[in-house]
Amino acid sequence: MAFGPRPLSPVLLFGLVPIATWFVVRPLFDPVPPLPALYTSVGFSIFAFITTIHLVPALGPAFVKAGLHGRDLLKTYSTAIPESLGLVCASVYILLLMLFIPFAFSSFILDHKNESKPQEGISVAQFPHYQLSVYLSSLLSLLIATILGFLDDVFDIRWRHKLPIPIIASIPVLMVYYAERGNTHVVVPLPLRSLFGTLVNLGPLYYVYMSLLSTFATNSINILAGINGSEVSQALIIALSVILNDLLYLPWPMDFRIPLHLLGNKAEVEFGGVWSAGMAHGSRELVERHLFSLYFMMPLVAVCLGFLYHNWYPARVFPGDTLCYVSGMAFAVVGIQAHFSKTLLLFFIPQIFNFILSCPQLFGLVPCPRHRVPRFDPETNLLHPSKAVLVKPPSRLTSIVLHALAAFGLTELTLHQTTGSILECTNLTILNFFLIRLGPMNEKRLVQVLMCSQVAGSIFAFVVRYGLAGLVYDGDRR
Amino acid sequence: MAFGPRPLSPVLLFGLVPIATWFVVRPLFDPVPPLPALYTSVGFSIFAFITTIHLVPALGPAFVKAGLHGRDLLKTYSTAIPESLGLVCASVYILLLMLFIPFAFSSFILDHKNESKPQEGISVAQFPHYQLSVYLSSLLSLLIATILGFLDDVFDIRWRHKLPIPIIASIPVLMVYYAERGNTHVVVPLPLRSLFGTLVNLGPLYYVYMSLLSTFATNSINILAGINGSEVSQALIIALSVILNDLLYLPWPMDFRIPLHLLGNKAEVEFGGVWSAGMAHGSRELVERHLFSLYFMMPLVAVCLGFLYHNWYPARVFPGDTLCYVSGMAFAVVGIQAHFSKTLLLFFIPQIFNFILSCPQLFGLVPCPRHRVPRFDPETNLLHPSKAVLVKPPSRLTSIVLHALAAFGLTELTLHQTTGSILECTNLTILNFFLIRLGPMNEKRLVQVLMCSQVAGSIFAFVVRYGLAGLVYDGDRR
Repeated sequence: MAFGPRPLSPVLLFGLVPIATWFVVRPLFDPVPPLPALYTSVGFSIFAFITTIHLVPALGPAFVKAGLHGRDLLKTYSTAIPESLGLVCASVYILLLMLFIPFAFSSFILDHKNESKPQEGISVAQFPHYQLSVYLSSLLSLLIATILGFLDDVFDIRWRHKLPIPIIASIPVLMVYYAERGNTHVVVPLPLRSLFGTLVNLGPLYYVYMSLLSTFATNSINILAGINGSEVSQALIIALSVILNDLLYLPWPMDFRIPLHLLGNKAEVEFGGVWSAGMAHGSRELVERHLFSLYFMMPLVAVCLGFLYHNWYPARVFPGDTLCYVSGMAFAVVGIQAHFSKTLLLFFIPQIFNFILSCPQLFGLVPCPRHRVPRFDPETNLLHPSKAVLVKPPSRLTSIVLHALAAFGLTELTLHQTTGSILECTNLTILNFFLIRLGPMNEKRLVQVLMCSQVAGSIFAFVVRYGLAGLVYDGDRR
Repeated sequence: MAFGPRPLSPVLLFGLVPIATWFVVRPLFDPVPPLPALYTSVGFSIFAFITTIHLVPALGPAFVKAGLHGRDLLKTYSTAIPESLGLVCASVYILLLMLFIPFAFSSFILDHKNESKPQEGISVAQFPHYQLSVYLSSLLSLLIATILGFLDDVFDIRWRHKLPIPIIASIPVLMVYYAERGNTHVVVPLPLRSLFGTLVNLGPLYYVYMSLLSTFATNSINILAGINGSEVSQALIIALSVILNDLLYLPWPMDFRIPLHLLGNKAEVEFGGVWSAGMAHGSRELVERHLFSLYFMMPLVAVCLGFLYHNWYPARVFPGDTLCYVSGMAFAVVGIQAHFSKTLLLFFIPQIFNFILSCPQLFGLVPCPRHRVPRFDPETNLLHPSKAVLVKPPSRLTSIVLHALAAFGLTELTLHQTTGSILECTNLTILNFFLIRLGPMNEKRLVQVLMCSQVAGSIFAFVVRYGLAGLVYDGDRR
């Protein structure tokens, strides 16, 4: 079965281009909005979406020709599907972030603004020059992630060798963080303050933490893969969650309240109003940090959306590792540079669950086959949990771990009829876990379940961050 | 015929590592040298050399396995030679430039320095923060050049499509130049000052000039290719010339004079002395600019040297387009950021000659075969000028151009015995030109001739820059 790329309506192109253009040029007209570069960023993101959704199918054949293609393991047909198209997303993403530099950092917009009357409240029209270094170092990290992801696709680097790759990509961020004398203090939770004081300087450990964060963000998305749309939908929902979190810190033109007491927090936060700026409590620095995060997250959402259109079941293109690398790195970069890495990790709950569940296979306790994707039944078009075969009788430790996981319903074991020793277990991934709990389903439904779990994780994250965190931290500065 | 990688002596490794380490850590000890980061840069460059010379043969098989290999067109054997190994050079180069950031830009070294007694003269221990942005934007451009060069190798982009690629790579440099309100004025030569004044603001044209400079620097090296060692030896000699030029602007500990009157210059320049700093005439800004250039050029020389060892006749590895892209971009970046683009172009005399000579073929006046490398005669092991066949009788313009080129000895024509119309001409490249003028020679000799012409071009460039330029420019500030 051969099928062409998914069709695109010209309405998309002709409808969105004027809207995007309006957003890009809006800061040039009076009255200049309080956050001019944010308008441009929205405009650029729409352009990123349009470009990605058109470029991905156009470049697919070139990838196939260069040998970058694969067959879909969970389908009946064996058409060559273009692989590594995440490179196109990453290129569009980074190119637009570069073209965005003069809008966010030049003194041009500031000059323009000064001519108009001074405005009340927090209005971020100029970035300090050191912010430009931070922005550029983040771009460098994203570019290195792109290169390394693509090299991984071309050279097919082995699993164990590619674990430390994100550390290389985080070097520019770490170097500039160091050169700029970045803050290495962390706020101590209330119960531990009697021991450590309010602030602890982690020193070099902070750099270790930052590089581990990028390693985790990248690899945790990369191992939750294998079904159509899984990688890109994770990135999409995490990016949307980060955006939602950022929006809480912006100076909104209208007033509104969020009933935080329902989440268990003692304090009530009033959003909006030019000075209060929501959770930023009037701190210009916090507003700037979350603007920085928005500049990186909005175009990421755009390219993910554009790509998902073609990667959705049944997939016309595959992302390759490049997309996981670049989106994981983007999350790590905003978490580090905008100082909300703990909040960020809360948005990775399904990935953390999947990682912990995978540990027995990742670290050799349980045999790990080349692919752990669910098993496809061509008769019924349903996916079933795939199984790892234990060729030799498992060690005592392996048995205990597997029986414990089975007791919690995280895996299903096939036992020897007489000896009772474990012969097979389902592969330890969140996807197989869903299939065990919810029964066999088709691939489209499975990716929908995965997306719902990601959304549920984000809702839980917001409850923890703005409700329960009040119990162990005072203030909301970090 | 199969042959392994060129052997490496362990003396190289064990001899150079301590020297490199000494240079890297030297700035940490008292007395702190006046240009501490320069020591670190020398140390890093030696590490770059060691890493490249060892990594290139080690990674060759992986490139062959990934399909990145080719056969040497000018040899009798058809062994698969690993291709695109310039990627390894570019990676080592950029990685070390990134690790260098804290040494050049952190306040750590400055603090250390302030403790010791203040020193006389120009001592550049601290970079202004805006220089960090400039450095990071240059790294971004180099990285993009690397990606695009590698994509060119993988996807085999057509000649006409890849001409504008360096413009994309120059975007970060241009964007940051704009955001930082970079200078767009140029000094007018003396004879034209009555018309334009001393300084002319080129405005947007300056950005066009900068992107054209990167396009030229990249592509002019890329089209002077085809024989073992040609690309990398050009990059090596140009980089060495730039370094020599930079050294004239540093504050030397000893005094010396260069007899500029022999070059036709009226002024005499005294080098050395803590305040005079050679051609910098005591300008701290000029010293900093040329330091910036040295930081980029010294590791480039190192990786080129390391690579040339394996690329030298008979080549064990090929550079691919990546090396041309990254080295061309490095030249453009230092020319732009350190403001000596006119001097830089003087070091490209053989490339300019080759480009002008190639124009009739590049722009379709004369047929352009896929490869214009000299023709190899397996009997004698000599190279002869290769020929382009004019399948249909040439137009009047083509005839005039070719006869004119032939009159200057730049091409050799094969004429129809009766009608006298042109049937063939030698391909219009500097390599074929050498073979016409000097007779057939083997490949090793030809690359040596090319290198000599590059050195001769650089000597001529210095005469023009420091001798004749005094006739049309006053002062030596640009």
